[in-house]
Amino acid sequence: MGSSGSQPDAAPAMRWWGWGDPGHPPALGEGVLSELRERLGLAGAPQPPVALEHVRLPEPALSARQRTALQSLLGHGALSDAHARRVAHAAGRGYLDLVRLRRGEPLGAPDAVVRAGSHEQLLALLDLCSRSSIAVVPFGGGTSVVGGVEPLRGAHEAVVALDMAGLTGVESIDRESLSVTVGAGMRAAALERELAARGLTLGHFPQSFEYVSLGGCAATRSAGQASTGYGRFEDLVLGLRAATPAGTIELRALPASAAGPDLRELLVGSEGTLGVIDRLTLRLAPQPRERIYQGLLFADFESGAQALRRLAQEGEPPTVARLFDRPETELSLRLAGEGLRHAATQLYFAARRRREGCLAILGFEGEPEQTRRSWRAARACARAHGAIVLGSGAGEAWRASRFSAPYLRDELLTHGVMVETLETAACWSDLHALKSAVGRAISDALAASGTPGIVGCHISHLYESGASLYFTFMARMLRGAEERQWQSVKEAAGAAILANGGTITHHHAIGRDHRGQLEQEIGATGIAALAAVKQRLDPAGIMNPGKLLPAGA
Amino acid sequence: MGSSGSQPDAAPAMRWWGWGDPGHPPALGEGVLSELRERLGLAGAPQPPVALEHVRLPEPALSARQRTALQSLLGHGALSDAHARRVAHAAGRGYLDLVRLRRGEPLGAPDAVVRAGSHEQLLALLDLCSRSSIAVVPFGGGTSVVGGVEPLRGAHEAVVALDMAGLTGVESIDRESLSVTVGAGMRAAALERELAARGLTLGHFPQSFEYVSLGGCAATRSAGQASTGYGRFEDLVLGLRAATPAGTIELRALPASAAGPDLRELLVGSEGTLGVIDRLTLRLAPQPRERIYQGLLFADFESGAQALRRLAQEGEPPTVARLFDRPETELSLRLAGEGLRHAATQLYFAARRRREGCLAILGFEGEPEQTRRSWRAARACARAHGAIVLGSGAGEAWRASRFSAPYLRDELLTHGVMVETLETAACWSDLHALKSAVGRAISDALAASGTPGIVGCHISHLYESGASLYFTFMARMLRGAEERQWQSVKEAAGAAILANGGTITHHHAIGRDHRGQLEQEIGATGIAALAAVKQRLDPAGIMNPGKLLPAGA
Repeated sequence: MGSSGSQPDAAPAMRWWGWGDPGHPPALGEGVLSELRERLGLAGAPQPPVALEHVRLPEPALSARQRTALQSLLGHGALSDAHARRVAHAAGRGYLDLVRLRRGEPLGAPDAVVRAGSHEQLLALLDLCSRSSIAVVPFGGGTSVVGGVEPLRGAHEAVVALDMAGLTGVESIDRESLSVTVGAGMRAAALERELAARGLTLGHFPQSFEYVSLGGCAATRSAGQASTGYGRFEDLVLGLRAATPAGTIELRALPASAAGPDLRELLVGSEGTLGVIDRLTLRLAPQPRERIYQGLLFADFESGAQALRRLAQEGEPPTVARLFDRPETELSLRLAGEGLRHAATQLYFAARRRREGCLAILGFEGEPEQTRRSWRAARACARAHGAIVLGSGAGEAWRASRFSAPYLRDELLTHGVMVETLETAACWSDLHALKSAVGRAISDALAASGTPGIVGCHISHLYESGASLYFTFMARMLRGAEERQWQSVKEAAGAAILANGGTITHHHAIGRDHRGQLEQEIGATGIAALAAVKQRLDPAGIMNPGKLLPAGA
Repeated sequence: MGSSGSQPDAAPAMRWWGWGDPGHPPALGEGVLSELRERLGLAGAPQPPVALEHVRLPEPALSARQRTALQSLLGHGALSDAHARRVAHAAGRGYLDLVRLRRGEPLGAPDAVVRAGSHEQLLALLDLCSRSSIAVVPFGGGTSVVGGVEPLRGAHEAVVALDMAGLTGVESIDRESLSVTVGAGMRAAALERELAARGLTLGHFPQSFEYVSLGGCAATRSAGQASTGYGRFEDLVLGLRAATPAGTIELRALPASAAGPDLRELLVGSEGTLGVIDRLTLRLAPQPRERIYQGLLFADFESGAQALRRLAQEGEPPTVARLFDRPETELSLRLAGEGLRHAATQLYFAARRRREGCLAILGFEGEPEQTRRSWRAARACARAHGAIVLGSGAGEAWRASRFSAPYLRDELLTHGVMVETLETAACWSDLHALKSAVGRAISDALAASGTPGIVGCHISHLYESGASLYFTFMARMLRGAEERQWQSVKEAAGAAILANGGTITHHHAIGRDHRGQLEQEIGATGIAALAAVKQRLDPAGIMNPGKLLPAGA
């Protein structure tokens, strides 16, 4: 694991004001846009982001003494307070983050971006920051959509973003145990490339796959699109090491243990508030030798959900499962790039038999025989629930475009569309009431802002006992009141989730956005337990202030 | 959930001095016994346990004021300090527990046995005990083999055993989500009976199945014999409620969540030291419509382990997997009841082709087609690794006798045999070195005590990344020095486990016996994190003192 230099090694470039590869071509068609204009009541000219040099940042608050101490600890190249570096670490990639970045007014910025090159340096850094009143925000891919990397300083004099790119790379692969040990700053995409060359896979593909770090996935309990098959990120963590202000926690890689409470599950999901996960041992799977992705059309969401529930509970569940409700089926096809438009053709062809319906995508990965058998069984089950099989065109089109939604978001923002997602999970018996309540809450809140919108929902992950619900909504952006507009929807949706048996987040984590709602989910005594750990491991309170735990906890 | 009465409702009877149903017939054959006499150098007459009335207990230490306060809170019938009740809650069912009980000298006894009939009563009880300096030992099935229910009072004036039988019964079954909500005092066997009548199963069958409570399984991260298929107990816990001295922690039943650290995984495994788990929502499975249990004979442990690893990593693992090394293969067959002796016949028949080898048991449960397919695939894999298939006789015999080992232990103790088990788990790449080191450590320690013994080992649970190792050993009991003899083996084995990549316990938990070794596994900072939670949830330190956390933590 090497460090040095102020530019991240091999870190993929990202638009400072939005999502993804700066060279990505526009994908929003004029037809869809004019339809959205009409339907959402858009008005006014497109608003591109300001120029980078016009982004207003606060003066760096690090004192000369603090700056010198950091530099002498980490080495000169490992600290930067250059404008572009601070902007790049000023926010995550949530809707409000982008709204603010685009207008050149992020909520704040780290006073510097620092890198540590070893575990020992990390411990020394946390010690220095604890003594010097400097808050530390661990920063991996920077893709949080819940304010998880917001450069908040809490009660401290200054705040630094800790760029995890200095702690990266594969340390070892254990083929016999099917595991890999990596520096937690490593990007998921970089690891997949290394694994693919060895016939292995981690199987973790969140929509943010191009950018996320593995440590970030662990710290936020990430779930990827194929997690129904390969497991959620917490299921992949066999062992880990974390640097905390109180010292190292190192948990050996183990398949299972009964040695008391599972500290892995305490650090996984801790969102940088207890310490910095800097090494992970992760479970692997063989590269699948066969991939079958298929599209299906159910008459309605209920029958589709019933079929998915049977797949999850009876035998061989798919690797990937998606079921879109009618509004989102329509939305997906309207917003589709070329790939999914091809699928749309198939869909409309099928729709000669069915005027409307709910699109489902099922993906199966593994050994050829088993994969084909699972698909055959799933197809029979889906047909028994009234599904029409659209074929692999729709499935492959979904797969080809599965990382593209955030690119579309950038374009929609330019055109004044508020576009946001939120997710939950619940037991099967709660799922439909939850979906109705949350969908209604979002619609009502948008209407109450005077911006009635489009609300879609899909099931994104299956479990034996339940499933996730992923909501996407669009409305006319209330220019100048974006925060208020967004906040009203989030509050209404969160209240509906918690009142109807859902979790406040299935895979986006708590961050800053949900910290006010965590207590409703785990109770005051649960919060007290977490706060006690926080106080013991981070007595100065430097670790990612203002995230996860409610104010005052 | 009802309470009242000082006798547990429907709690199965257990020998106060040993294991299990008092009416269970003897099973140790004279042939085996004389062989053991010779091999282990046994001498002297059989020593049956003393009579119940001769068991020496300390005077109850509850003051009249404490006793009255407890009675007026819980109701008169809910407190007992009768001799038999105190003896029945004086110890778990570890080797030393039984040695001490049989000679009428348990280490101590609870000053009273109490029951709470509701969550609110439980909270009030913990509050009263916190204010009155009374330690509380949650007591479910009482089957801990690591001192987990030892009636230690720590720094307190008195100690009560909290009989969980007052908080029992099925609250609801959610067929759609495949889950059940139960009072945590409910016995696993009672739940299985209720579920079987509805075509469902929990699938949790530890060797202590006849007695264990579900709350006890949760508090100790239990793994059952079929956990390779149905999942470890922590995998089954969707939601829970716990009463702690600081208040209630209630975690809704969820299939998954990204809402911060997983508090389920903090309470699961907490061994009664943070509070009392009094309600659980557990994942269920359909009752299998087909069961296939088969015996196989591998040439050696290494080839058997390799076959099991492939089954765990490639496709459809068995529901039950056991692989015995040569000493334990021999031991199992010598000690077998009638069922396994039948299997032995098959084995010796097969052994005409193979003079010696390692017995394996594979069990498959589920839908007929899938079950048969899995077995066919496993058989092919096993044969490719040189296995001879013994057939279903051996498999069914194992299944029929799978809860019988603790009964044999009682008889062996009578005849002066020290017999004990311990378990660990590790990644596949560490497994063989771990097995050698621990086996050698046990053998050497027994020899150093002047009592060379027999040491066997089997793999009991499979994971993609590794497996468990379960050691059984026998030696001549050093009468009068049983503790020292036992301690020397445990220390040597524990040191070998921790030095070779294993966990100090795969499914027996920490209890009192491993608390000195937990720090080696999770580190001083890990201990500090747990201690912080303990201090916050149980500030008076009344919850199960002397367990889990090391002294002084």
